[in-house]
This record gives sequence, structure tokens and C-alpha cells, in this order.
Amino acid sequence: MYIGIDLGGTNIAVGLVDKDGKIIKSDSRPTLSQRHYTEIVKDMAELCMELTRDAGFEISDIEGIGIGSPGTIDSKAGVVIYSNNIRWDNVPLVAELKKHIDVPIAVENDANAAAYGEYYINGKGASSFVAVTLGTGVGGGIILNKDIYRGFNGAGGELGHTVMIYKGEPCTCGTDGCWEAYASVTALIRQTTKAIEENPDSMMVEIANEAGKVTGRTAFDAAKAGDAAGKAVVDQYIEYVACGVTNIINIFQPEVLVIGGGISKEGDYLLNPIKEYVKEHSYCANIPQTEIKIATLMNDAGIIGAALASALKK
Amino acid sequence: MYIGIDLGGTNIAVGLVDKDGKIIKSDSRPTLSQRHYTEIVKDMAELCMELTRDAGFEISDIEGIGIGSPGTIDSKAGVVIYSNNIRWDNVPLVAELKKHIDVPIAVENDANAAAYGEYYINGKGASSFVAVTLGTGVGGGIILNKDIYRGFNGAGGELGHTVMIYKGEPCTCGTDGCWEAYASVTALIRQTTKAIEENPDSMMVEIANEAGKVTGRTAFDAAKAGDAAGKAVVDQYIEYVACGVTNIINIFQPEVLVIGGGISKEGDYLLNPIKEYVKEHSYCANIPQTEIKIATLMNDAGIIGAALASALKK
Repeated sequence: MYIGIDLGGTNIAVGLVDKDGKIIKSDSRPTLSQRHYTEIVKDMAELCMELTRDAGFEISDIEGIGIGSPGTIDSKAGVVIYSNNIRWDNVPLVAELKKHIDVPIAVENDANAAAYGEYYINGKGASSFVAVTLGTGVGGGIILNKDIYRGFNGAGGELGHTVMIYKGEPCTCGTDGCWEAYASVTALIRQTTKAIEENPDSMMVEIANEAGKVTGRTAFDAAKAGDAAGKAVVDQYIEYVACGVTNIINIFQPEVLVIGGGISKEGDYLLNPIKEYVKEHSYCANIPQTEIKIATLMNDAGIIGAALASALKK
Repeated sequence: MYIGIDLGGTNIAVGLVDKDGKIIKSDSRPTLSQRHYTEIVKDMAELCMELTRDAGFEISDIEGIGIGSPGTIDSKAGVVIYSNNIRWDNVPLVAELKKHIDVPIAVENDANAAAYGEYYINGKGASSFVAVTLGTGVGGGIILNKDIYRGFNGAGGELGHTVMIYKGEPCTCGTDGCWEAYASVTALIRQTTKAIEENPDSMMVEIANEAGKVTGRTAFDAAKAGDAAGKAVVDQYIEYVACGVTNIINIFQPEVLVIGGGISKEGDYLLNPIKEYVKEHSYCANIPQTEIKIATLMNDAGIIGAALASALKK
């Protein structure tokens, strides 16, 4: 039995996970991230102990605890080197949690942990696996030879921060034209808002009004209902996503690539045109092609992946 | 003692290589690539045997023969799946050479072999290493955990065929806007030619006339001599190179990245602005940064890398 902790800016989500990647029981508390890290870790420890007890286990039944944390992580040292999200700087996360619970503990970058969860459940046995997350940003995780690829300094896998349109839209990272600036939900909302301004008769207007705001679903819903302006937004957005996916495939030729994050709920409506674009634009022909799939674990990927990644050698 | 074979569209270059990566003796013959592959392999075998004998060794002294071949390679099976360059289709290269010489033989993609050579000599011990070649195209090779990263189908590492300017200049691969279409020598010559047309008073005109044509050195030579139009071409070209290098770093955070190919002869004049750009644009701060270097083996990288990669597990 393992425990996975998904440390976010808003919540600490903790789950008891069996060796097959099934969440047995889970719970969460607000992170209240402005607190000192020792307080946050105390909450993590309490959640771990409560969950274990409530599920009828002892701490000695726990083979490992894995934490998925935002930021740049030194997995070997068990330290969060830097996190913009929760404003941490060289926090010895593993050592601090060990003070409360004496089992093997590990920490991974949250995107890497989530990718490992998807790999464990959906990519079993793949020699190379890439997970792309279309969320507020565009995240990535790379699993090679059954291990998380971290880069030599722990900061590898920033797939969203690769320039796809040189001198294009500004990205949160300070560079212009990153894939994230075109393929994130944030970017889709920007693209949708612009299209609404230019097409006041579009069904997107009503859909956005009903929802109270423009969301990542506005253009998709309009497109599915036959709205031309909505379809134009969706077609262009999907091409941005697919272009970045093709870039990743030309670099890694991974056996499996999964697409997750909020927008992946669009399923085949998103997936099929991506597959078509990749088929047309990827560099290799007449050889086995990357299997492209929609992620299935959604918000559970972080907990499951962190839990199971605790068993990886650092 | 190893033998490395660099199979090109024009020449078959063969070298006797010691375990430190030093070429003891080398020779070459024209590929005459329109011949049947059995004829080409016969020449390879003869070159191997002549070199070994001339250097005072026996075939039994050869621990392995490695071939770097253009195209998509199945290293496990020892087969060239497809090569556009020499028009091969499912050629059982290893088995064919084995008919002539019974020592361990392996085949790798030529860019991967060259990258492995640079890694072996210039990146010893690096847990992650990327080689970028700025030549007719933009090639790449990725070495992770002391092994060549090939992708699950043997076609991985096409770093040049990642879109950096969506819907930009057409690339030889059929997609528009690939990094190769901006950072190859071919692209630099195109950029230089355009600048000459727009700046008939530029020193580039005279430099090109003297050389009899526009080359990858025209703009660099003019820039170094104080020509403003030449400097503008070089500055922009280097920024294209640096943008792609930053993309690779944000993905891999490799311990070492080397830049090779014809243009890498510009040395620090090329390297220093790349380093500066990467420092400003790479995604991670306050942690160890990728060491960026100029490749040193030039044309020998293929022979050395192929030879030493013959010892890798497939």
C-alpha cells in the first residue's frame, strides 16, 4: 500500500493507493500556502495517518509515500528547490515529513508525478511515454525506460515552454510564442474572446452569457452546435495543439502519448483531428507510429502517480 | 579495437578506433549508392579488412564494428528500415556484413552515431547529452544514461523537424516552419541571398563574388569585417539557432549540449550569443544550467561514434 500526496496551491489532496494504482480512500485539506512549510507538512502527515487508520491499516503497511509538488524538485535530495506556485525556496520536504512518519518518502514535480500515474495505468510496458496536460498552462511529463525523465537538474520536461511561434503571443514564462501561449485553456479562452468580439452574432456569445463567462468549453460547445465562428476557433486551437504534439513525436517517437487536462474531456472531438494532423506532419513514415490517447485519470493522476513513483530509484 | 563505418550518400568512410575514441587509421571509397546494397557492403568489408591488416592487426583483434547509416534504423534487428539518402528499403545491413566478417556488428542512425562520438569524447559521464548539427539540415542526437535515445521505432531525435515558426518557411520534410528551415546552412544561405538583394552595397556582395557563390560563411565574414547588413543576417540567424537550443534545453535540461556541423567552426562568435540567449530565455533559474559547447570531432564524429556505439546493448 502506498500514499500519494498531490500538493497544490489551493489544496493538499492525499490518497491511499494500492499497487495496481487504485485509490482506496482519499481526503484533502486547504493548503493555506502562505503558512510556514512545517505547518503544511504537519497537515500532510495528519492526513496520511488519518487515512491509513480510517481505511483499517497501520503505518507499517505503507510501503512508501510520494509527494507531487509544483516547482523544480531535487528528487534525489527530497528538496523543493523552487516553487513559484507556493513560494517555496529550498524546502527539505522529505526530511520534514519523515519527522512525522518514518516510511520511505519521495518527492517529484507534480506534472511528472501525474505523467507517471497515467503511464502506470495507461502506458504499461511502453519503453517511452509522454503525457501532455492542456490546463491553465501546458504541462508535460516524460517517462523513459519505466522511469521519470527529470533532466540533470530536475527541471526537464517543460514541453509547454518551447517556442512554436517565434516572437508570437507573450507567455507567462517571459518568452514570446511558447506552445503554452497557444494551446493552454488560458490561450483558448483568449482566442475565444477575440472571436466573440469579431463575431457578435456567434452562438459563442449566448453560451458565454449563460455560463457567466468565456470558458475553455465555449467555442467547443458552439462548434458542436454548428456555429461557424466557434468551429473556426476550435479548428485553429486543435491545430496549435497538434503542431506541438507533432514536435514532441518528432523528438521522442514515444510508444504512447497521452493528452490530459481539462480540454481532454472533449475526447474524440479533440483527439481525432490531432491524430490526422500528426499522421500528415510527423517525420517518419512506413514504421510503427506513436499511439495517441486521451488521459483517463484526470485529477487522480497526481495522487496515483506520486504514490507509485515513491517506489522509483532516485 | 573497434571499427567505425560512416556510410554517406557520397563516400563510405571507415576508421580503426581504439577504446579511447582515437582514430588509428582510416580510409574511404565512393559509395556509388545506386549499386545493390550487397556490392556496397562488400566494399565496406574490404575496407575493414584492409585497414585492420595495414595497421598490423588481425580481425580477431576487432571487438566490434559499428555502422552509422542515414535513415530510419532498427538497431535491434540491424536493419536499415528506410533511407531516402541512399534509397534503401529494409536492408539487413548487419546480417550482410556478417557474411564477410564474423565479429559483433551494429548499425545506428548516422546522426545518433555522431552524437554518441561527441558524447564519448566531450560529454563523458553526463547523464543527459544532446548534440545539434547545423549542416545542410539540422540534425540531432540524444544520449541518455550513456545510451543512444532512439525512440520506440528508431526514428527519434529529429530535433530539426520541430516547428518553431508555425506556417513559416517550407521545410524539406513537407511541414512549414521547422527549426531546420531557419537554422540550417541551407537556411543561412537563403537568408544571406535575400539580404544581398536588399543591400547591394553590403560587403557580402564582394565576399560572395570572391567565393564564386553565397556560402554559410558569407554573412559571418562580412559581419566580422564590420558590415551592418551582414551582422543583421548573422544576429538573426544566431537567434534562430538559440531559440531552438532553448527549446531543447527546456525539454531535456541536458547536462551537456554540443553544437556541431559546418557553422560550428565559427566557434565563440556563434557560441557566446547563444549562451546569452539561453540564459535569458530558458525556463529554469537558480539551478545548475546546461553546459553548451562547440563540438570538436567534426567529420570524425560519425566514425568514432559508430565504432564505440557497437559496444552498446541494443
